Amino acid sequence: MLNSPDFQTIIMSLQSFWAEEGCLIWQPYYSQVGAGTMNPATFLRVLGPEPWNVAYVEPSVRPDDGRYGDNPYRLQQHYQFQIILKPDPGNPQELYLQSLQALGIDLQEHDIRFVEDNWDSPALGAWGLGWEVWLDGQEITQFTYFQQAGGINLEPVSVEITYGLERIAMALQGNYNFRNIQWNQYFTYGDVNYQAEREHSIYYFEEADIDRLREMYGLFEKEADLALNKGLVLPAHDYILKCSHTFNVLDTRGAVGVTERQALFGRMRDLSHRTAEAYVAQREKLGFPWLEKPTIRGRKIKSKSSEEEQMNLPSEVNLPETADLLVEIGTEELPAADLEEALSQLKKSVQETINNLRLSFDEVRILGTPRRLAVHIRSLSSRQDDQTLVFKGPPSKQSFDKDGNPTSAAIGFARSKGLDTKDLIKKIVDGGEYLVAEVHEKGQSISDILPEKLTELVAGIHFTKSMRWNESGVAFSRPIRWLVGLFGSTEMPFNYAGLTAGRATRGLRFSSAEEYSLKNVKDYFSFLSSQGIIDDSDERKQIIKGQVAKLLSSVKASTDIDKNLLSEVNNLVEAPTALLGNFDRSHLELPPEVLVGVMKKHQRYFPAYDKEGKLMAHFITVRNGDDRHLDIVARGNEEVIQARFADAAFFMHEDNHHKLEDLIPKLDSLTFHPKLGSMRAKSKRVYDITRKISADLGLSAKDKKVAARAALLCKADLVTNLVAEMTSLQGTVGKYYALRDGEDLPTAQAIEDHYLPRQAGGIYPKSKPGLVVGLADRLDSLVGLFAADMSPTGTKDPFGLRRAAIGLVQNLMQWKVDFDLRKDIELVSSFQPAAVSPDQQQACFNFIVGRLRNILLEEGYRYDVVNAVLAEQGANPSAALTGVVELGKWVEKDEWSTIFPAFSRCVRITRDISKSFKVKPEKLIMDEERTLLARVEKAASVIAETGSIDAFITQIEQMVPDIDKFFDNVLVIDKDSAIKENRLAILQKISAMSNGLADLSLLEGF
Amino acid sequence: MLNSPDFQTIIMSLQSFWAEEGCLIWQPYYSQVGAGTMNPATFLRVLGPEPWNVAYVEPSVRPDDGRYGDNPYRLQQHYQFQIILKPDPGNPQELYLQSLQALGIDLQEHDIRFVEDNWDSPALGAWGLGWEVWLDGQEITQFTYFQQAGGINLEPVSVEITYGLERIAMALQGNYNFRNIQWNQYFTYGDVNYQAEREHSIYYFEEADIDRLREMYGLFEKEADLALNKGLVLPAHDYILKCSHTFNVLDTRGAVGVTERQALFGRMRDLSHRTAEAYVAQREKLGFPWLEKPTIRGRKIKSKSSEEEQMNLPSEVNLPETADLLVEIGTEELPAADLEEALSQLKKSVQETINNLRLSFDEVRILGTPRRLAVHIRSLSSRQDDQTLVFKGPPSKQSFDKDGNPTSAAIGFARSKGLDTKDLIKKIVDGGEYLVAEVHEKGQSISDILPEKLTELVAGIHFTKSMRWNESGVAFSRPIRWLVGLFGSTEMPFNYAGLTAGRATRGLRFSSAEEYSLKNVKDYFSFLSSQGIIDDSDERKQIIKGQVAKLLSSVKASTDIDKNLLSEVNNLVEAPTALLGNFDRSHLELPPEVLVGVMKKHQRYFPAYDKEGKLMAHFITVRNGDDRHLDIVARGNEEVIQARFADAAFFMHEDNHHKLEDLIPKLDSLTFHPKLGSMRAKSKRVYDITRKISADLGLSAKDKKVAARAALLCKADLVTNLVAEMTSLQGTVGKYYALRDGEDLPTAQAIEDHYLPRQAGGIYPKSKPGLVVGLADRLDSLVGLFAADMSPTGTKDPFGLRRAAIGLVQNLMQWKVDFDLRKDIELVSSFQPAAVSPDQQQACFNFIVGRLRNILLEEGYRYDVVNAVLAEQGANPSAALTGVVELGKWVEKDEWSTIFPAFSRCVRITRDISKSFKVKPEKLIMDEERTLLARVEKAASVIAETGSIDAFITQIEQMVPDIDKFFDNVLVIDKDSAIKENRLAILQKISAMSNGLADLSLLEGF
Repeated sequence: MLNSPDFQTIIMSLQSFWAEEGCLIWQPYYSQVGAGTMNPATFLRVLGPEPWNVAYVEPSVRPDDGRYGDNPYRLQQHYQFQIILKPDPGNPQELYLQSLQALGIDLQEHDIRFVEDNWDSPALGAWGLGWEVWLDGQEITQFTYFQQAGGINLEPVSVEITYGLERIAMALQGNYNFRNIQWNQYFTYGDVNYQAEREHSIYYFEEADIDRLREMYGLFEKEADLALNKGLVLPAHDYILKCSHTFNVLDTRGAVGVTERQALFGRMRDLSHRTAEAYVAQREKLGFPWLEKPTIRGRKIKSKSSEEEQMNLPSEVNLPETADLLVEIGTEELPAADLEEALSQLKKSVQETINNLRLSFDEVRILGTPRRLAVHIRSLSSRQDDQTLVFKGPPSKQSFDKDGNPTSAAIGFARSKGLDTKDLIKKIVDGGEYLVAEVHEKGQSISDILPEKLTELVAGIHFTKSMRWNESGVAFSRPIRWLVGLFGSTEMPFNYAGLTAGRATRGLRFSSAEEYSLKNVKDYFSFLSSQGIIDDSDERKQIIKGQVAKLLSSVKASTDIDKNLLSEVNNLVEAPTALLGNFDRSHLELPPEVLVGVMKKHQRYFPAYDKEGKLMAHFITVRNGDDRHLDIVARGNEEVIQARFADAAFFMHEDNHHKLEDLIPKLDSLTFHPKLGSMRAKSKRVYDITRKISADLGLSAKDKKVAARAALLCKADLVTNLVAEMTSLQGTVGKYYALRDGEDLPTAQAIEDHYLPRQAGGIYPKSKPGLVVGLADRLDSLVGLFAADMSPTGTKDPFGLRRAAIGLVQNLMQWKVDFDLRKDIELVSSFQPAAVSPDQQQACFNFIVGRLRNILLEEGYRYDVVNAVLAEQGANPSAALTGVVELGKWVEKDEWSTIFPAFSRCVRITRDISKSFKVKPEKLIMDEERTLLARVEKAASVIAETGSIDAFITQIEQMVPDIDKFFDNVLVIDKDSAIKENRLAILQKISAMSNGLADLSLLEGF
Repeated sequence: MLNSPDFQTIIMSLQSFWAEEGCLIWQPYYSQVGAGTMNPATFLRVLGPEPWNVAYVEPSVRPDDGRYGDNPYRLQQHYQFQIILKPDPGNPQELYLQSLQALGIDLQEHDIRFVEDNWDSPALGAWGLGWEVWLDGQEITQFTYFQQAGGINLEPVSVEITYGLERIAMALQGNYNFRNIQWNQYFTYGDVNYQAEREHSIYYFEEADIDRLREMYGLFEKEADLALNKGLVLPAHDYILKCSHTFNVLDTRGAVGVTERQALFGRMRDLSHRTAEAYVAQREKLGFPWLEKPTIRGRKIKSKSSEEEQMNLPSEVNLPETADLLVEIGTEELPAADLEEALSQLKKSVQETINNLRLSFDEVRILGTPRRLAVHIRSLSSRQDDQTLVFKGPPSKQSFDKDGNPTSAAIGFARSKGLDTKDLIKKIVDGGEYLVAEVHEKGQSISDILPEKLTELVAGIHFTKSMRWNESGVAFSRPIRWLVGLFGSTEMPFNYAGLTAGRATRGLRFSSAEEYSLKNVKDYFSFLSSQGIIDDSDERKQIIKGQVAKLLSSVKASTDIDKNLLSEVNNLVEAPTALLGNFDRSHLELPPEVLVGVMKKHQRYFPAYDKEGKLMAHFITVRNGDDRHLDIVARGNEEVIQARFADAAFFMHEDNHHKLEDLIPKLDSLTFHPKLGSMRAKSKRVYDITRKISADLGLSAKDKKVAARAALLCKADLVTNLVAEMTSLQGTVGKYYALRDGEDLPTAQAIEDHYLPRQAGGIYPKSKPGLVVGLADRLDSLVGLFAADMSPTGTKDPFGLRRAAIGLVQNLMQWKVDFDLRKDIELVSSFQPAAVSPDQQQACFNFIVGRLRNILLEEGYRYDVVNAVLAEQGANPSAALTGVVELGKWVEKDEWSTIFPAFSRCVRITRDISKSFKVKPEKLIMDEERTLLARVEKAASVIAETGSIDAFITQIEQMVPDIDKFFDNVLVIDKDSAIKENRLAILQKISAMSNGLADLSLLEGF
């Protein structure tokens, strides 16, 4: 690309641009930081109420991103350009986009996207919502509205914009390897930084001395604490940064286990929190002197008090009788799920609102794109229907005195309705005569009633995660930047989030008519259409589906399209245009899970499969915009995916130096939990447990061998580079590496299987060996961590024990494998490094059964049925499921109304008797006794044989007449205690039939 | 100042300026560094042959410059703007000055000066020569030609320019407190950095945990070593930087003693050296790929090979018979001492050169300013005098054969002189007849002979410290940037340092006619004069003296002017204009030594004293330039001095929290030497030794008390802030603080005195107690450190033992105090923590006597006289001096020629006889014996009484006739051994008379 700016010019241009906008130009920090966020110019300055606008370069060091200089994109040090705008100027996205233009980027030539990306830093106790900004599929910027830092809520919210300078330079210079970026006219980025990439990568990955780094960490932490104790905020912050960097190096060396990570994060967060509080206190003591400094203001935000006067309500007389209503909530890019959620909420609430307002209309349409939520009501009447309300007053008798004059009760009632007593009517209500007030309400004009309701409508939309941005303090998924309210051609203003609705809308970004003043509602749709915006979600989805299918066909690929991905992509664009990209065929050598993972998860690309289901070297992406300059967009996307694949290839290449089996000793470097040893120790336990339960579960000799081998290898991939990078592929990577190492397919499969299912609704283990290893692994985690007092509390579940327990019981149910949780918990306890107390075992058992209960309840089974079965069969989830299903069916049957009382009667009469009686046949004195006993004995043997609830209840059902007769004719509580005990013994036998199956006393109606 | 650029604009302007010039814009380093030099973009990139031009900001952290934000100038973190130009572009000063103009500085309004400031970094193994750049007395930039880094010679040399951004901003914005600098339109520097200054100062000075920092240092060092062992240059460098910063913090905490400092510096230097070597090896292995990159070229440098052809020698015919010759060597600003030295060398060498060339002339003038050395020769003839050279050939006899034909000897001789044999003449030489050749040499034109000689003349100037700058590889005090060679109006070109002399000269910097083409030699002087440049050093000195005196008079101050300062100032300006500045009277409360030290040493200001000798709140500085804008210049200078005084006041204020006596325990934190304990232990020894030798030296009871008290307190000021800052004031500060604490004046005086003399020629202790404490201190250091094997070797003398020994003997000589070094070394040894061996004591004694010998030799005493006296009186320097003086006089007298042989004869005959004989009077058989013996016995008693060499030699002189008679008439070696021994006994008595006085056998002629 000719005349494209070089790297240093990009930096200088950004400095100039933001200085012009009023930002203070700051310098990189003198400490190794992972991001500009950690520079005190961000981390501390975003705290407290004072305005602060700043811009600076930050060379950001992330040891585990090191790639020895071999990867075109990934660097252990990259250059960020960091902006903080505090408070939100109202138009930060626009400012940002202008800055890209200042760099010479023609925004119309590219696909620029704001892709949901929320940010949190456990070490800093900070989080925010925002986006990655994509330029042709490439992430070039992080854009975040900070909500919290150092554990403190931020008021006002700060906008953080973090440019990835290398990415921008690559895009501008049209080359896609950091080494080729022109730094100035003479030197490339590679010239000046390649060697650093190589050397630091070697140091971080291979050479850094773990023990010494741990010592450093400890020293830094103590100095931070010392500084905080003396109220020295900045020195403390410096040492926290040193802690953080040292932690990162340790992590890159693979020296930090899960627990240690948790612990260190916790300690850093605590220090950060103390630092943040100390900073705010310090500023407060100074009286927040910068409150007087000016802020950057893009758009004026109305203050609460001025809202009313600025609203220009339409005069009633001007309104037509009916017209279309349009309400548009213009937002910054909504996350896909939030868009979905908002549309569904609006569907419900709009309808309700209009109905409640007694407004007639033809049709309600709810429309939406990532940048707008719209309500379109056809032919809405401009006035409510009139109505008559009837209010009951005092009884007639008490309403008039003997002279016929209204009593004070009547007068008061009339006054309360704004009527005179003579307007009150006598009516018979509920058999008595009362005074009644009939109030005729004339329907109001929508100009009087709608604004308030529209505000409520918007305010009523709720999101799982919402954010504040300006001083209105309202929360939404992302900032609302404009509101449209139009009734026909008349403005229908309402207020929200510091904005007043009017006729100004916005089109597609970067289009020539980005802002547009609507003449009327109809104009809105033609405007959107002229911009290529498809505001109807379903329609848009179909269009995308068609475009994608067409492109897939063009390369002879299967046109099956992932529905979830389609839904997501549909929510990412306003004006979809699908395009085809290609990547180097050599990448097809990577495991398809890796390729697909990258394409779908990272890039939201549709992969292409041939008719045999094999992956092809193509992908489809859907840009936001028209079909001009698709070549540029495609080129950018291709470069991104190539780089990502190269990254994975790099890791696999590195990993090929070691067999999985040889990596096992390296598991020693990963701590599982201090009390439970390393991952290697855990791995050994899983192996031992697997061998034990393989036998118990009756695996074949061959399966036993496979399970044992898989158990041995199942954790080894945790210390591979590829898993370190793509954690979600643990197990899958193990599978591929096992095959690479010459392991047999069942073993490889079992390695992958032992993690399955990965999440609710995920696929289950395909093989029994995999199932068994997974059981062993999960049980070991559950028992061990309960023993280590790491049981989940509240929202805290650092080891994912909920997930483990759920996976455990789901697998057992899925595979219909009988299991004895109690026994196996005891077994697993015996393998733990420290004793597991009976209480801890019980707690663990209860926890697992608790998860099983939740699963069953979520499946829709009656809670009493679930409780009844779990009380007896909780230790065997698969059987419990069968029991719940069977019992669930019985309790719905008509016969249940006879079966249940009969059985219950037997139970109730015996349950408080602690002593167990034996039937003495010689003491049977009545036929009913004998008949029942014979029936009972037969039934017991049938039930024992099948062991099912079905059998049990069927037997009871057949027994009902005999039970009834028994109770009708036999007095159980005989004076002769021997006879009494004999009768009770028969009933105890009946009661006992449900043992091990269900505790029916827990059913409703018992 | 309106429209003056704010801080961030200054940075952005410098970035733009240097980017335009071809510099790569780099970023601050991610580690706490003391200066931009430590950024690898300087430290490593200056190594090796590859070109590299770079510019970057460096927030530089110097813990001990922290002032809690209270000092207007000093900051624990200041912002540097760093430039590296490699190789030297030829005009770096001009580029730099243009950059100042780019910042909006009107150079003509200010006094801009390049003040000698050489730089070295022990930790980096680096050094260079250059300047501080002063703007109105304020240092705003460091300008250095790097000669070495990491212990490696730099080829090419790099130019390093380091702007002090705060200083520049203050000057541009016209305010003189960092807190008030506008950073951008809204924020001041104080807004964003004051709190950091406060907090970090507290941390560095008061809170940093010394033990933990030491541990960190050790860990960092080990990681650096590890990285180097793996060939990882940059990771190693990072850890060296961490070492360096940690060291600085420890140092600021006062935790580093002299030896530890040495050791840590040594280790850091070693690591830096290894890093540097590894870097160069790495680049070499890559084939120095940047050799192909372009360099910045201000002026063309001629390569060696093209020199000849480019020289445009004047044609002989054009030259007038006589004319003035002008040679000017135009340089970047020479240091004062170098200018002095160059002028004196030229005075000698020019005269010699012209004489050797047989050129006639009227007068040779040697002129010079900091920017030029000039030779002006009036009425030089353009042609050498003719001459006839006579060469002696072979003897006539061998020159012709019997036929009279010339022999081959004659032919060869003639040919060797370019003559025919018939041109040879017969001449009587030394009594024999020879063939002689008379060669008539016509004088050559100066155009043929001068250029080479002028080159030699310039090359012949030598400096104590010289530097290289461009690829000509020549060394000079500072770069030579132009050469003028003019004979009348004709160019007289010659080559040096890649330049060819011509007619282009330069005037005063920033003048409108900075570059000027000379019409002729006369034009040169009128040009200089028009620029206000006084090129005659003596004349300039008189002018300055007059100006200064006039200004002093104007404030009624004494007009005594410090001669050394005057000489220095004279060498700092071309066009002197003195101006008066004032400072706040409140600063007069500071000790005058502090004020004067700052004014003279740092600022080269003339202080003003009133008629009573009391310091006044004025100073005189001499600017380089005319008298326009003197108000601006004065203002700047005033601010500088105010800030410096404020700095000193700050320290005194801090120090006032503690009495001197209370500081003694803090001396524990300063290590004197690991084997010798802390400074507190040393202080205790000095106290003990003082008490012991006070008695020996016969001090009065009162003086003894004073000495003891002073010894107790004498080192306490080492842990004061003021001494930490102004080390040269140790002792003086002690004096003031002692008085402040209520000590009596003699004690306070003795504290200061014990350091005296501070250097050769310095003032001596004023009081005997001070003398004694000083003796104790120096002897303790000498004996202790010799015992610790720290005796000076080669140029290494980290503890200044040479200085200590010299001070010791000088004081003894000055105070004429008798002393027994041997005895006192033994005494002092007994106080040392470890045993001092006899060998070590002897070595220490020899070392001290060696220094005494050197002093006496330097005073001009004959070496043999010195040796003779020291052989007997070396242990008592004062007596030795008297002895040398007396003996020195005797050996110059005529009588000596009789005295010395007589005495020598006695010595010679007896000296090899090891046995000592006793005179037996009964065996005296001759008168001569008896007479001599009587004479000898009388003399011996006289000598013993006075103990002087004078007495001894006077007695010998009187004895001469008797000695002569004795030898004339008495046969010493008699056959009778008793008689022989008796005679020898008399002579032994004579010989022994010199014992304890001098060993005359060491005199010449013995």
